[in-house]
Amino acid sequence: MKTEIRFSGLGGQGIITAAVILGRAAALYAGKHVVQTQSYGPEARGGASASAVIISDEPIYYPKVTNPDIYAIMSEEAYKKYGSSAPSDALMLIDPGFVSSRPSCKYYEVPATASAKEKLGKTVFANVVMLGGILEATKVVSYEALEKAVLDSVPKGTEEANKKALEIGREIIRSQQK
Amino acid sequence: MKTEIRFSGLGGQGIITAAVILGRAAALYAGKHVVQTQSYGPEARGGASASAVIISDEPIYYPKVTNPDIYAIMSEEAYKKYGSSAPSDALMLIDPGFVSSRPSCKYYEVPATASAKEKLGKTVFANVVMLGGILEATKVVSYEALEKAVLDSVPKGTEEANKKALEIGREIIRSQQK
Repeated sequence: MKTEIRFSGLGGQGIITAAVILGRAAALYAGKHVVQTQSYGPEARGGASASAVIISDEPIYYPKVTNPDIYAIMSEEAYKKYGSSAPSDALMLIDPGFVSSRPSCKYYEVPATASAKEKLGKTVFANVVMLGGILEATKVVSYEALEKAVLDSVPKGTEEANKKALEIGREIIRSQQK
Repeated sequence: MKTEIRFSGLGGQGIITAAVILGRAAALYAGKHVVQTQSYGPEARGGASASAVIISDEPIYYPKVTNPDIYAIMSEEAYKKYGSSAPSDALMLIDPGFVSSRPSCKYYEVPATASAKEKLGKTVFANVVMLGGILEATKVVSYEALEKAVLDSVPKGTEEANKKALEIGREIIRSQQK
């Protein structure tokens, strides 16, 4: 069992942190083998950001993400670069505030940035809203594992807001599953 | 021109953050191609932490770190796992508060944890002290690039302490080069 998750968007949206947190959840709190990667070219200066997590029950010998199973996409540019070629059996979470295209695979609209701003006062929690969405949509790790990894990783004093951010993301998915 | 840097130590020492910051410096502020990786197995729960950065003038097609040129090692266990097999032309920075072994390649002792505690009051800055040491010992990125990436990445209110941490690391290397 092997799952590949690709996060992409703009610099400043916490794309790398999201992948680090998910990798941490899977490795430290779910006992999985994990490779977590960021690749940047000089064009990263223009604002593109992408990261990936491979989660496996077995040791991972080839660390390059080839065909993600799950995409979290937070900019239209990132959609064009990563999302538009997603296979039809992939699952995609997109922030509709930043992404106007829609894929042919299954997807959820997760207004992570708008929800974080509206309910928590700061867009900085958008990446954790997205993680809550991934949790609820995929169960790739347990809630307990992800919560621990979030709390490990965020600045002191922001724990409660981050727990709420996770819950907001879960609720967005639940409301689309009804 | 391609440089591979391996950070290793214990969970909580900021091993992953150090690699993320260095990767960011090289990609966003030095115009390089970068792949930045964490690999964890289930044994990570026991406290081992490792991360890596590949910095290149050309696109990177094989993202697995094979033979690091530069090692920053912050635990004896990490030394045994990564450092003891370092090639003779590698360069190693070790925190002597945590690593008792010494390599056959060129190395510097960087008491990052003790210096951070003593001069900044908190061991949490040890990873940035280590980054300052890498900067001074290798010039793999410019001071300006690294400082920008540090300031991008650290919690608000800690900017000055982190700038001091970089300078502490640089001075430790300079004192051993005299």
